[in-house]
Amino acid sequence: MNVLVINSGSSSIKYQLINMETEASLCSGLVERIGEPVGKLTHKTHPDTDAEKKIALNEAFADHVAGMKRVVDLITDSTDGVIKDKSEIYAIGHRVLLGGEKITKSIKIDEWAKDVIREYFPLGPLHNPANLAGIEVAEELFPGVPSVGVFDTEFHQTMPQKAFLYPLPYSMYEDLQVRRYGFHGTSHRYVTKQAAKFLGKPVDELNIITCHLGNGCSMCAIKNGKCVDTTMGLTPLEGLMMGTRCGDIDPAIVPFVMEKTGISAAEMDTVMNKQSGLKGICGMNDMRDIHAARLEGNEKAQLAFDMMSYRIKKYVGAFMAVVGEVDAVVFTAGIGENDEHMRAAVCQDMEHLGLFIDLEENNTRRGVARSISKGGKVDILIIPTNEELEIAQATVEVLKG
Amino acid sequence: MNVLVINSGSSSIKYQLINMETEASLCSGLVERIGEPVGKLTHKTHPDTDAEKKIALNEAFADHVAGMKRVVDLITDSTDGVIKDKSEIYAIGHRVLLGGEKITKSIKIDEWAKDVIREYFPLGPLHNPANLAGIEVAEELFPGVPSVGVFDTEFHQTMPQKAFLYPLPYSMYEDLQVRRYGFHGTSHRYVTKQAAKFLGKPVDELNIITCHLGNGCSMCAIKNGKCVDTTMGLTPLEGLMMGTRCGDIDPAIVPFVMEKTGISAAEMDTVMNKQSGLKGICGMNDMRDIHAARLEGNEKAQLAFDMMSYRIKKYVGAFMAVVGEVDAVVFTAGIGENDEHMRAAVCQDMEHLGLFIDLEENNTRRGVARSISKGGKVDILIIPTNEELEIAQATVEVLKG
Repeated sequence: MNVLVINSGSSSIKYQLINMETEASLCSGLVERIGEPVGKLTHKTHPDTDAEKKIALNEAFADHVAGMKRVVDLITDSTDGVIKDKSEIYAIGHRVLLGGEKITKSIKIDEWAKDVIREYFPLGPLHNPANLAGIEVAEELFPGVPSVGVFDTEFHQTMPQKAFLYPLPYSMYEDLQVRRYGFHGTSHRYVTKQAAKFLGKPVDELNIITCHLGNGCSMCAIKNGKCVDTTMGLTPLEGLMMGTRCGDIDPAIVPFVMEKTGISAAEMDTVMNKQSGLKGICGMNDMRDIHAARLEGNEKAQLAFDMMSYRIKKYVGAFMAVVGEVDAVVFTAGIGENDEHMRAAVCQDMEHLGLFIDLEENNTRRGVARSISKGGKVDILIIPTNEELEIAQATVEVLKG
Repeated sequence: MNVLVINSGSSSIKYQLINMETEASLCSGLVERIGEPVGKLTHKTHPDTDAEKKIALNEAFADHVAGMKRVVDLITDSTDGVIKDKSEIYAIGHRVLLGGEKITKSIKIDEWAKDVIREYFPLGPLHNPANLAGIEVAEELFPGVPSVGVFDTEFHQTMPQKAFLYPLPYSMYEDLQVRRYGFHGTSHRYVTKQAAKFLGKPVDELNIITCHLGNGCSMCAIKNGKCVDTTMGLTPLEGLMMGTRCGDIDPAIVPFVMEKTGISAAEMDTVMNKQSGLKGICGMNDMRDIHAARLEGNEKAQLAFDMMSYRIKKYVGAFMAVVGEVDAVVFTAGIGENDEHMRAAVCQDMEHLGLFIDLEENNTRRGVARSISKGGKVDILIIPTNEELEIAQATVEVLKG
């Protein structure tokens, strides 16, 4: 049984075909620059195995349908394809950003679900329209194949009011739906289940703090397997310092800077989302570049790194206060899985809170779930995330009831 | 030796005359509605003693000089005065909001200091001009008496860069002085010294977390007696939920709400400062009203209380991660000193972090520094703050070198 996972962006489609029996990825890829004169398609069959084969194409894709059609051709190609025809696709799982308070778990896509996704366009102006476009493409190209929506916000729907409401006029919640939604939910949910497995504990007895540190970064406080708080908020801007996003700042800075510089609200939003974070401090937003620069004595690069790790550390403490006895702090995603410096900096001088990092184990790279703690009350885990597999599994769960 | 402490606002002057030998307040009071048709002056001699005498006047005060002249009359009154004449005032200590990075400790006021206070008008638009006006009034009415400026931001000047810089474009720090300054520094410093005394520990070995919870609320992470982080930022809006201020929110909410509702940056600033916090959630911002409403089953009042205590609790955890082994969590100011419900809610379920609150002692009211812990790694203290005394002491220290 194969599930096709689609993550549709405004001018891109990320996809992966997964064999649910083996949990292996049959193929994965990315269509980019849809609608531009020259688009790009990168396609891998049997990725990350010895049989991996990569195809890169530069050609025009008029729209998402055209892009996806080309993908179907590749998947079902008589020579390099991984399935014979579209009938071998059992279902399609769609990543959707925001289901708000109306969609609190993965759901079979019907007209109502599409209306809800549409209703939340104002809150997810970049993602929700693109996600809906991906659903419509799937409906056109795979008639009769069920689609399931898996939402970034789902996992966070268990937060209590005191955690998801902002201390703003209550009418902003009622009239404008301003509240903390949280994002990266699929990743936080996946690593939570994997952590339970790794620690041999039932999920509903698991207390952990998950750190999804990639280009976007968020943390989640998980009590008895359920999200009770998270760092991202109404939008994916709040919380941690990220590649180009500022995360938490004094909200009064926004009107202050607007007034002093004369920039508009939309421009300030762009500054905070695209020109801040690591990039704002040191001009770089790839952590590997930053480490290289640090080693050469670049003070701004060191500062950017110190600020990012410091802010993660503060949230580890904050979430410890919220969760109670914590079983583990879990690192995942690009930086979380691969950056030993970041993990070491976050866990440094945290022995008084029960974290004892094993620096030798931390410095070793292995692509599997493992502990990098040398004992102490709170375990420290690295768990590779797999959002596509989580979406595929949720898709099957919804359809099988 | 008597020191006059002046806290000058835009249309008010708060003052207190302190005998430095006994540390007793000889008199204190408040001139309000300066410049309005009818002003108000409330004056107490020997406040909070058996000899307390209260005078309340309603009359016009054309400007700050006129208001302060009236205060001098009362202080030196032949019947009800507390000193014979102005010559018995050794020095004047002024509370000033913001000294930025240029004034990092209390300073004898000269032309340079006044220039710096003026330079920071854009960052403290409500307070710095009023504080400077108070200094000029003192110069006019008390020629030859030295004035000392004691700044709200002083105590926080020991924060490391990683704590005081925002992950925004670095040019905002260089060109617009956008950084975390922190406020309530005089109170945090005072209770730090008192906590050291109470615990019998040298200040420079003291690790504490101070919670100044009044109408404005801020917390401070203190390591070896020095501030290493604080919740307020560029302005006193950031951090905790307050009476009418929102504290931390997703900064993207600012442009989002501005765009949806069409309000200006200045209006949004007002919403966040004046119509948010406890008031935004439940319509009330006096904690006594909120407790009364909670008891009557008002769900919004309960929610506002829960949100406020929850957000304090998160910062206790965050600052524990930052400070290392903590000697005590210290509560001070109106709510911190008098609200047993708030303290209990903050310390509830924090045993895993070493906080064990003695609920019986917590429920008892006494106006002295004391512990409300029943053991555990981290003490819990109530320490009445006294910003005026701190200002007076700093004033004497500066002048005596």
